[in-house]
Amino acid sequence: MIVDFGEHMTGYFTFSVNSLDKAADGPIRLKFTFGEVPSEVAVPLDPYPGTLSRAWLQDEIITVMEAPTTITIPRRLAFRYVKIELLASSGYFDFAINDMICHAQTSVTNEPEKLSESASPIIKEIEKVSLNTLRECMQTVYEDGPKRDQRLWIGDLYLQSMANNYSFKQYDLAKRCLYLLAGVSDENGYLLATVIEKPYPRPQENQFLFEYALLFNATLKDYVQATGQREVAEDLWPVAKKQLDIIRTYLQKDGLLDFQKLDGEWWVFFDWKEDLYKEVAAQGLSIFALKETYELAKLLGKEKEIADVPEMIRKMTAAAKKYMYDSKSGLFTGTGDKQISYASQIWMILSGVTTKKEGEKALRALVTAENVCYPGTPYLYHYYIQSLVDCGMEKEARESLINYWGGMVEKGADTFWEAYDPNNDFISPYNFYPVNSYCHAWSCTPVYFIRKYPEIFQ
Amino acid sequence: MIVDFGEHMTGYFTFSVNSLDKAADGPIRLKFTFGEVPSEVAVPLDPYPGTLSRAWLQDEIITVMEAPTTITIPRRLAFRYVKIELLASSGYFDFAINDMICHAQTSVTNEPEKLSESASPIIKEIEKVSLNTLRECMQTVYEDGPKRDQRLWIGDLYLQSMANNYSFKQYDLAKRCLYLLAGVSDENGYLLATVIEKPYPRPQENQFLFEYALLFNATLKDYVQATGQREVAEDLWPVAKKQLDIIRTYLQKDGLLDFQKLDGEWWVFFDWKEDLYKEVAAQGLSIFALKETYELAKLLGKEKEIADVPEMIRKMTAAAKKYMYDSKSGLFTGTGDKQISYASQIWMILSGVTTKKEGEKALRALVTAENVCYPGTPYLYHYYIQSLVDCGMEKEARESLINYWGGMVEKGADTFWEAYDPNNDFISPYNFYPVNSYCHAWSCTPVYFIRKYPEIFQ
Repeated sequence: MIVDFGEHMTGYFTFSVNSLDKAADGPIRLKFTFGEVPSEVAVPLDPYPGTLSRAWLQDEIITVMEAPTTITIPRRLAFRYVKIELLASSGYFDFAINDMICHAQTSVTNEPEKLSESASPIIKEIEKVSLNTLRECMQTVYEDGPKRDQRLWIGDLYLQSMANNYSFKQYDLAKRCLYLLAGVSDENGYLLATVIEKPYPRPQENQFLFEYALLFNATLKDYVQATGQREVAEDLWPVAKKQLDIIRTYLQKDGLLDFQKLDGEWWVFFDWKEDLYKEVAAQGLSIFALKETYELAKLLGKEKEIADVPEMIRKMTAAAKKYMYDSKSGLFTGTGDKQISYASQIWMILSGVTTKKEGEKALRALVTAENVCYPGTPYLYHYYIQSLVDCGMEKEARESLINYWGGMVEKGADTFWEAYDPNNDFISPYNFYPVNSYCHAWSCTPVYFIRKYPEIFQ
Repeated sequence: MIVDFGEHMTGYFTFSVNSLDKAADGPIRLKFTFGEVPSEVAVPLDPYPGTLSRAWLQDEIITVMEAPTTITIPRRLAFRYVKIELLASSGYFDFAINDMICHAQTSVTNEPEKLSESASPIIKEIEKVSLNTLRECMQTVYEDGPKRDQRLWIGDLYLQSMANNYSFKQYDLAKRCLYLLAGVSDENGYLLATVIEKPYPRPQENQFLFEYALLFNATLKDYVQATGQREVAEDLWPVAKKQLDIIRTYLQKDGLLDFQKLDGEWWVFFDWKEDLYKEVAAQGLSIFALKETYELAKLLGKEKEIADVPEMIRKMTAAAKKYMYDSKSGLFTGTGDKQISYASQIWMILSGVTTKKEGEKALRALVTAENVCYPGTPYLYHYYIQSLVDCGMEKEARESLINYWGGMVEKGADTFWEAYDPNNDFISPYNFYPVNSYCHAWSCTPVYFIRKYPEIFQ
């Protein structure tokens, strides 16, 4: 039997068992399989080919020792669909399962204002799914996904916090996350990419993710701008300042990062895309982070503490232009690999290495170029939309958002997925799509675009 | 990994999981299989060929969502052995399982006096295992087995109560059971054989077991004799008196029970032995129950209320002798079937149909007779030992007890088994020996024999 709860929920599942005709004289063995999407309750889970722990899959075998009884599965679940299989019963009595309830939980209590009536139906729908996604991920931290991982990652936090600033406007959760991350930074002061909160907060050891450490600063800057809580930024300023040393460590005289060294010592991510060459994106994100951090310093009146930053920005920008830009094609490629990728163009735009016009040219050139490495996740797609907006390509921004996130909606998404490729329904960063997260933090940003740029998206 | 806890325990199993080298970043899926005997954790449980609910088998899959953590499996277990299998883990961190604890439970608080030093080692060992069995089955009711069924049956209660009267001497549990049984008797006043206690006490519907209903009276009589609590017997006397109507219903003018009719309307049990023909045993047990009930009436001064009983006993005894006894072979066989069984001889002896000498002759004749239906369980074997004692066959009684229960001890039993055939290690009333109970109420009576008849058994 498969039960559709009608919407995505995160919480504890409770059910009752009642004997119908005669007293229960023996136990019942039930298997519950919970799914965020139908495929999770439809495909066999074993033998498991995935690369993450099989235990993330939400199938639980429960022995019901007496009836009537009420049982709560002792694991927080994220699901819309529940498959129930009867593995064993006594045969002496018939029974019913009643009162299936999910004690759903989120830290969201606010409701954002409604979109204007005139917004298009698909935009309204995308916004609703976007809000669902964000709401489900807002627990005691900003989680990356309530089904799998269930924890705080800086990269997700950055986007969630951005989406929250334009929707629920509940700022305490970001504050908690920023302090948690700072609190578990390593002995040198570098941030780790992720905090495991339960049973007590600690980082995932050695999980140093280059751009996430730097995006902490952008998140903190956004937080101060959204809340005006200067004291939080002052508390955390030493941490933010310290992260710039990552750039300083790898910055060469010519203004380029020593990407090979950086890539060997840090996890450089940008997207779930095995073949992505990340040199250009790393150069761009570094410039972006320097700018965000300098802006934060200005908000606090602490520019003097990072007085070398304007010159770093200038030098790195010039180097990017000099060594990475092909003015003929209008595209950026790395010094070590000539791959043409979305990621490279995007981060050259977001960092301001390009002019608006150059950016537009690069983005348009992507469409016709061959062997382009395109985005594998909504995470990079978010930055793609932002780069379209930044280059004034409003029509393309709107169309891309509707095509990409609207594509998930059309495929039945209640919440946005961790990985989505319109051309590959079986995409998975973990070699088994049922272990993908189908309610994923970094996919929640349409609400940010829709609310921040109503003239484009509504 | 298989852990031997060193002794049989009944209770809740708790364990801790600790991450060793790095923080736990994902869940662990563990399978625990609990066994009273090694085979339960050694043989495959699926595909399950048994006739009782597969869910009685004690294998539970647990998802450990965080570490360190402490988890209690939410099911009372009965076990000595625990097999732990790792089904999934994150691979990122190593972990340990520590602090495996069974919160063992029993309602036994007394310890019986020690046996005399001079008792033989095997008798001491048998008594110890016998006490373990009884202790484990004494929970909030006298359970038939703490692993499987976990409930009160009159036939088990009768023997457990008898063993308790000669060991722990904790009488309240029998009192509770007697009232529970009486409290859920049917609308006609007949007792049902079994009470399911959780989540609230009620009988197993339609479970009318002929000799168990009658053995209630013998249990009540024993209880009054052991405790002197006349008021309990007075409370329950109407129930006991009513059960005699079962005999009256089927008693024919010739003094024989209408066995065919009885067998069609009641469950006539006596032993787990499919081919056993039960007519003679039913006649014998009826006479036995009439005598026990009349003795109870005398204790209460209520003989007048069942004034027909002495004549019933006389008539039924005479009929058994006339129609069922072959004076040449010295054996009793049914009027409907000439099967020679232990059960038939045993109940003719226990009912006093035979003289001591006739009884001895019958029991000795069993040894050489052909096609004898021998006992399949310690339940009938208990009555066999009693019949040997009643016939003064002290040597044979002692030898039989040592051979039968001692045989289980030699095979490594910590507690006595529901089914035991020295010639068939795979015997099962349920077509799959791992679902047998290996700590079973009706197998606990050696302590009764050893304590009641020290001159024979010690």
